[in-house]
Amino acid sequence: MPNKIGKDLNKLFNPDSIAILGASRDEKKIGHIVLKNIVNSGFRGRIFPINPNTASVEGMDCYANYKDLPEIPDLAILSIPAEAAVALLEPIAKKGTKNIIVFSSGFREIGPQGAKLENSLRIVAEKYKLNILGPNCLGFVNVSANINATFSQAGSAKGNLRFISQSGALASGIFDWALAHNLGFSEFITLGNKSVLNENDILRYWQDELKKSIVPTGLSNYQPIGMYLESIDAGKEFLNLVSKISLTNPVFILKAGKSKKAQEAARSHTGSMAGDAAVQEAAFKDACVIRCEATEDMFDLARAFSWENAPKGPRVAIVSNAGGPAVISVDMLEKEGLQLASLSKKTIKRLQEKLPAAANVFNPVDVLGDALADRYAEAIDSVLSEKNVDALLIILTPQVMTEIEATADVIGKLSAKYRKPIVCSFMGGNLVDKGEEVLDHYKIPSFRFPERAVRTLARMWEWQLSRRRVGIPLAAGKGKNSAKVKLLTKNTVNKISKITKLAKNQNRDVLSIFEADKILNLCGIKTPKSAVIKNLNEAEKFAKAQGWPVVLKISSPAMIHKTDGGGVIVNIDNPVKLAAAWKKISQAAAKLPKKSGFSLHIQKQIHPGIEMILGVKYDESFGNVLMAGAGGVLAELLVDINLKLLPLDERGAKNLLAKSKVYPLLNGFRGQKAVALNKLITLMIKVGRLAQAAPWLKEITINPVIINATDAVAVDTRIILRTR
Amino acid sequence: MPNKIGKDLNKLFNPDSIAILGASRDEKKIGHIVLKNIVNSGFRGRIFPINPNTASVEGMDCYANYKDLPEIPDLAILSIPAEAAVALLEPIAKKGTKNIIVFSSGFREIGPQGAKLENSLRIVAEKYKLNILGPNCLGFVNVSANINATFSQAGSAKGNLRFISQSGALASGIFDWALAHNLGFSEFITLGNKSVLNENDILRYWQDELKKSIVPTGLSNYQPIGMYLESIDAGKEFLNLVSKISLTNPVFILKAGKSKKAQEAARSHTGSMAGDAAVQEAAFKDACVIRCEATEDMFDLARAFSWENAPKGPRVAIVSNAGGPAVISVDMLEKEGLQLASLSKKTIKRLQEKLPAAANVFNPVDVLGDALADRYAEAIDSVLSEKNVDALLIILTPQVMTEIEATADVIGKLSAKYRKPIVCSFMGGNLVDKGEEVLDHYKIPSFRFPERAVRTLARMWEWQLSRRRVGIPLAAGKGKNSAKVKLLTKNTVNKISKITKLAKNQNRDVLSIFEADKILNLCGIKTPKSAVIKNLNEAEKFAKAQGWPVVLKISSPAMIHKTDGGGVIVNIDNPVKLAAAWKKISQAAAKLPKKSGFSLHIQKQIHPGIEMILGVKYDESFGNVLMAGAGGVLAELLVDINLKLLPLDERGAKNLLAKSKVYPLLNGFRGQKAVALNKLITLMIKVGRLAQAAPWLKEITINPVIINATDAVAVDTRIILRTR
Repeated sequence: MPNKIGKDLNKLFNPDSIAILGASRDEKKIGHIVLKNIVNSGFRGRIFPINPNTASVEGMDCYANYKDLPEIPDLAILSIPAEAAVALLEPIAKKGTKNIIVFSSGFREIGPQGAKLENSLRIVAEKYKLNILGPNCLGFVNVSANINATFSQAGSAKGNLRFISQSGALASGIFDWALAHNLGFSEFITLGNKSVLNENDILRYWQDELKKSIVPTGLSNYQPIGMYLESIDAGKEFLNLVSKISLTNPVFILKAGKSKKAQEAARSHTGSMAGDAAVQEAAFKDACVIRCEATEDMFDLARAFSWENAPKGPRVAIVSNAGGPAVISVDMLEKEGLQLASLSKKTIKRLQEKLPAAANVFNPVDVLGDALADRYAEAIDSVLSEKNVDALLIILTPQVMTEIEATADVIGKLSAKYRKPIVCSFMGGNLVDKGEEVLDHYKIPSFRFPERAVRTLARMWEWQLSRRRVGIPLAAGKGKNSAKVKLLTKNTVNKISKITKLAKNQNRDVLSIFEADKILNLCGIKTPKSAVIKNLNEAEKFAKAQGWPVVLKISSPAMIHKTDGGGVIVNIDNPVKLAAAWKKISQAAAKLPKKSGFSLHIQKQIHPGIEMILGVKYDESFGNVLMAGAGGVLAELLVDINLKLLPLDERGAKNLLAKSKVYPLLNGFRGQKAVALNKLITLMIKVGRLAQAAPWLKEITINPVIINATDAVAVDTRIILRTR
Repeated sequence: MPNKIGKDLNKLFNPDSIAILGASRDEKKIGHIVLKNIVNSGFRGRIFPINPNTASVEGMDCYANYKDLPEIPDLAILSIPAEAAVALLEPIAKKGTKNIIVFSSGFREIGPQGAKLENSLRIVAEKYKLNILGPNCLGFVNVSANINATFSQAGSAKGNLRFISQSGALASGIFDWALAHNLGFSEFITLGNKSVLNENDILRYWQDELKKSIVPTGLSNYQPIGMYLESIDAGKEFLNLVSKISLTNPVFILKAGKSKKAQEAARSHTGSMAGDAAVQEAAFKDACVIRCEATEDMFDLARAFSWENAPKGPRVAIVSNAGGPAVISVDMLEKEGLQLASLSKKTIKRLQEKLPAAANVFNPVDVLGDALADRYAEAIDSVLSEKNVDALLIILTPQVMTEIEATADVIGKLSAKYRKPIVCSFMGGNLVDKGEEVLDHYKIPSFRFPERAVRTLARMWEWQLSRRRVGIPLAAGKGKNSAKVKLLTKNTVNKISKITKLAKNQNRDVLSIFEADKILNLCGIKTPKSAVIKNLNEAEKFAKAQGWPVVLKISSPAMIHKTDGGGVIVNIDNPVKLAAAWKKISQAAAKLPKKSGFSLHIQKQIHPGIEMILGVKYDESFGNVLMAGAGGVLAELLVDINLKLLPLDERGAKNLLAKSKVYPLLNGFRGQKAVALNKLITLMIKVGRLAQAAPWLKEITINPVIINATDAVAVDTRIILRTR
């Protein structure tokens, strides 16, 4: 059934008939392996090998030509060189086939010539509305439909896990690893160059699939989705799609990042502080998606979410035959936001009765080095039946008496009895391998090192917390303050546009402080009284009219950090100081490159308060992101970067501030007065509205916003325009 | 040869004859396993099984009694219950045996009764000067002497790695793991309860051994030492010992920590901020020792340092058949302080000639998914011969053409050719297992996930950096400023002692501000003029005499954070403000518990500057530690804890400040004036001298020290006395 806004991918992933172009008798050829994989996976439809130079492959008759086929295949798999593949698309489309996998490499990834070829592919796909997976991909596996349409060497078992891998190379590793650990998939789709179909198309298709699917027994209650992505094509749509899934089914993503070098060119605080990875993290958090920090996290979570339910609380019991690793795990628990469960008197009594006198019956429970499987069983049964325990970590080292496999067996059986999440760490080499095999058989996630087990449990608990916390992400603004903030009128937006157009016409992409302040004022944001001054006389006039103290500033696109080059002088509270300051700032300005177009400003000094930085930056993938954190000199000392995708409502603004390292200050830390938090929140919402109403602004940075007991004022603002 | 200050452990670890008490025919018994291990390890000396109930074990005649033995064994191994073991110590000692291993558990670890028994053991050991390993240990392996005196199930191969494990349970896991990875040991010693012999005894013994040993070929140039410790008995001596080894031979330690709960009771900033783990980290850094953050680090470094030399520089090349994992590794490199090597034109040209056109010849080098072993070889040979490359990471995913074992073979051969450090990540499951086996054979460290490989390389590079940086740790104070600071005279120390004795006599362990200031003044540290005041009148008199502005303060042992309960009012610059402040602070004081014994103070306000916190705390294991970091309100916002063991010299003080997050401020950040850094350094050295001269001070916390352009002044000081 076609998704309303999406493509109908049903026959791509559930075909009744498949044609394989480049089917080969050579067992080393991809065209042979994919055919064999399809046959071996138990595909019940019709297979048409196509190869003009071969009469038959694997006992099946070969066709020389696509148009000669006796029916219209639902799916065509192209295992032929890139140029030939592109040339064959039109004949395939003309026959009537809509779904195509292109294995071939030699496209965009090899340079301009390949990119040109890939463009041709895209044009044909658009013309005939083809669903093309790839090129440069490994195909897909749909275990429920009994089809392995990949050229992977490893097979795959049936399970509840869905996976998207942009890289076929990594997918090969995942298949091999999953098979070794008895981890089954529901569907595994590789995307390759994503010329036509991307992750959003797959997620849209899965939205329906998830509703239909029945979770196999003996697994977790979820249908988890793992992803390895090198790029996210349409971030906002992506978040929209995953956020609909992620509250019920855990979604975890490993995103290959960009090296820092790419970020060095950023020309403002917001630009350099809110790097791509940070924006992504904020976006993923909004959508209740787990971001894998390392490859291993992805592998660990795949097993964990596939096999175990997330813990219902943070309280973890530990049962171990080794004291040291248990203590290390307790430290790790606390570090990762979990808690060591307090066992009830009843459980402690039970443990005292069942375990030897020398055993530690308090959590972590030490069953001692000579524990056989039955002693592990007593301890595990006792703590799992305890209501104060939400999850269990079992540690085993292969000591002389240790019954490794029997203990694993006991764990498997008790896991089924209680259905509380269990993670294991059998520490060692070949001896414990056999125990791990048994655990894999029972589908209990095990980790060679206990810290990994704890970390995995912590990620599961975070997801649990996050899905409880996240309501409907990206919802429209609600709350007292955001209700007060009206959307910008057309008239206001026109006025803003006029200011920026002037700058554009003058070939400037950085606005002057004056222009920036004017725009903020149009949005109802307070800025200090200020004026451009040409000489000391003008400065004195301003100070006398507006009142001391005043601030002198240089405004120049060449200065990112005004305070660096003596570009700001504060606390000028009399004419003598003003004269001295004027001299100093004129000298500083004289050092600037002549062409940079600076001007000198005087500003009425704001009553001191807490300095924050507020910024909005446009992210290519996820759109506008608002940043808030410690401002002024502290901005860089604290590295206090807190992000939220727009739109921003009152709750979002509050959450964002609560994450800031200076939040205690805002609330009146150590006997200081609390500040006008509501004014700050309103200001944040207004900045958000501005960014959304004027998408031609690339970056807005207000540093500092000064917040005191009565007001929040934008003291220094830098606005950069988009150049395209 | 006996170590001058140590025990002669030579015959313990290199015995010519061994008696085994509790030798058994039962294959499951520890007394059987250890005998078999000794025989199987090729021990060439004499073995005497002792068991009154058995005639022979494994073809050897059994003795009924220790005194019946035909000679005096160099070593006695006790594999009998705890009480019997203790009872037999005296007869063994009387026969003349000096070296004993006690496997038995049932001592301190089981509670008070066991502790009593352990005490008896210690008394006998002292009486007869016995070298006892254990109790509750797994024994030791000395591969060079062909003796495996453990009851471990796994054997162990010959190598260059020395290991100390306090836990026998974890040692079992390490043995099993090492065997699976072809990692060999030189010596492996388990300590158990450390009743008699501890890590320092072993290290002292090894100091000589390390000079004698010849490193086997095909390994790294080092004789690395790994340790798993649950406690460090005499921290200063330990540091002294390891720091003599660690500049030549890498030393890495996993220390099982304590959970946070133990630290909650700390009553001061310094106490709570400088936890045990932080002090340890500072201590280890001083001694050029690598602290393992997780169990896995210990396992990873064991192989890495055993097999590969540390890189000579931070520049890493990557060769991969998968693009994504390579990109992820680049991110990780930067995060971990390594660099992506820039390949020379010559190398790039060579790669262009040898690799297919689609390959990426810039670092990270992508050999493409269809790379066979020969293509890997070309790429690896090219980058290893490049002078800009200090280390190499090789990534492999098992794709359809990939020659996994052949590629591993190629890596092994090229590794021998160039001797630059290589780490590998073969990603997958059973398919890549075989490749890893080949890598293990060649002794190339491999990791299932590339981030682990990068992390390990980074730790190796850190060690390289650290041993270049560290001169002679814990050296006597040198430098202009520390030379100026004279040691405290006996007279001064007496005066300090008088002040603290008074407090002791009054049953106080927290000094008043006045007492604390007096002590600092005695050490030549400036404090603001101040006075205790009883009423507003006295306060006014003080202010008029000393000059405005002034500060009002409550001094009370009940208030740790004065600013919390309105205990500090600053910026009082006229009599009206003083009256208001007086009223406010009196009210705040009235809220304190009546018995807490508070007093009200007035202080001349110091010219504003940067606020730092300085503290000294006494650590049970490592002695006095000095802490420096952001002070005042920032202290907790920044979490800026920087530690250095005393003594502190000028270089040490400078290094410590350079680590602080507010260091940029001290140097005149963003156009601000630089502060009197030398005054601060002198003050730090003086505080250090005070702590060393008056060891009965448990904690000194100065918060803030205000540093401005002309001076550094200790504005608020809290001194806590040791209670025992």
